[in-house]
Amino acid sequence: MTGIAELEAPLADPHLSDEALRPAFFEWLCRMGDSTLILGHRTSEWCGHGPALEEDIALANTALDLIGHTQFWLGLAAEVEGKGRSADQLAYLRDAWHFRNLLLVELPKGDMGQTLVREFLFDAWHHLQLDWLAANSSSPRVREIAAKALKEVSYHLERVCDLVIRLGDGTEESHRRLQDALDRLWPYTGEMFTGDAVDATVAGAGIAPDPASLRPAWDALVDEVLEAATLTRPQTRPDAQKGGRQGRHTEHLGFILAEMQFLQRAYPGATW
Amino acid sequence: MTGIAELEAPLADPHLSDEALRPAFFEWLCRMGDSTLILGHRTSEWCGHGPALEEDIALANTALDLIGHTQFWLGLAAEVEGKGRSADQLAYLRDAWHFRNLLLVELPKGDMGQTLVREFLFDAWHHLQLDWLAANSSSPRVREIAAKALKEVSYHLERVCDLVIRLGDGTEESHRRLQDALDRLWPYTGEMFTGDAVDATVAGAGIAPDPASLRPAWDALVDEVLEAATLTRPQTRPDAQKGGRQGRHTEHLGFILAEMQFLQRAYPGATW
Repeated sequence: MTGIAELEAPLADPHLSDEALRPAFFEWLCRMGDSTLILGHRTSEWCGHGPALEEDIALANTALDLIGHTQFWLGLAAEVEGKGRSADQLAYLRDAWHFRNLLLVELPKGDMGQTLVREFLFDAWHHLQLDWLAANSSSPRVREIAAKALKEVSYHLERVCDLVIRLGDGTEESHRRLQDALDRLWPYTGEMFTGDAVDATVAGAGIAPDPASLRPAWDALVDEVLEAATLTRPQTRPDAQKGGRQGRHTEHLGFILAEMQFLQRAYPGATW
Repeated sequence: MTGIAELEAPLADPHLSDEALRPAFFEWLCRMGDSTLILGHRTSEWCGHGPALEEDIALANTALDLIGHTQFWLGLAAEVEGKGRSADQLAYLRDAWHFRNLLLVELPKGDMGQTLVREFLFDAWHHLQLDWLAANSSSPRVREIAAKALKEVSYHLERVCDLVIRLGDGTEESHRRLQDALDRLWPYTGEMFTGDAVDATVAGAGIAPDPASLRPAWDALVDEVLEAATLTRPQTRPDAQKGGRQGRHTEHLGFILAEMQFLQRAYPGATW
């Protein structure tokens, strides 16, 4: 874990001046930051509406963590892009087709079962991804952000696995809700492991792992938790729904942006 | 009913050059136009989601009618204001506290029972208001708009009374849903009949009726329909919830505006 001081004096990173790498590096950073931003927004929708005070506070804190990660990822994206945009401008002034988040994170929050299963499926990937990045990324700046985020995401994963097991192996209703959520969300999970040319370039530079390489460890963790939760792994295709990382989104993203971006759209440049 | 030609060559209207009247006249026109705009938007939310094709189309047409009225009311408001703003700018570039719609119309659409009961309570007032304006307003421009809108609103009222009677006096479930909606919306109805200094000024100039003067006819119509529908008139205070016409809104309006205004906020001045 690095300190605030190091963030104030950025680490030297040769990747930031690599012109050939710039477009793919920027895209990949947006994919990281947009997924945490949109999931953070969705999670924040529970604030004041949680089924129990402890869950309400836990979800609000998770949302804050994710939006904190966004600030780092999109801040670095803006720096790599080098066009004078800030993290705020990337978050609040792009339209849907410029967003690069996973489709999984933009789906409506649904009931608590859908919210928890979505977080579980995402966190299981997110933790592996950050763990790899913190240990192996050839970019010191990426390693630094990943190491900071990893601490929080380790806790997110621990908490959500615990809840999935308790509720999956809970009452008849809680079991049914979690299984329904799992069946509904499963076709969106494959996108986390489906690489494209951007991923190949960034993986080739040693910045990030090949997405497919994380699949075995994800499968193992998911299977372990589902078994303890008495939930059934869906047999449907996990990659039926994808395209978010390339900017092809569901109808839900536009509504998220309308709400999330209202202030900066209505009052351009407003600060507090 | 006046023709399009007359709209293209506006009627002479001495009220438009009355400096002393201008602020109240502008406010009152915003109250008319904002209520039709927000109810039009809420009604449009059913588009593609109606419980039957005929109802889906009827609601979409109602929404279009209301947004059409908005164009006239806010167009005249912009003219009266005389600051170079257009109807579009008033609709899409004001924030919540500048909106002057009734609270009743900004509440979530709810189920079909809530949507129909809300439309019934509003239309019963809207029809009386337009009927008075078309026949009696001292402003030729207001008379002209009211006469155009009255034809459409007469049909809205006829259709919704019919549905309220059929569903109130329908199945146990349809009766329960309509009664629930009536009980929930009743405290918002009083705002239609509660005048303030703006209303007094506009009524004093003969432009519009004193809001309270429409109450007996509204009560009579509502009682008649509720009786035929076997619904019970709530005994709660009808004026418990108000303030929208003065710019004090529920939390729902901001979300409506975020969605409704996104395009003009994100792409200022966009046309098609």
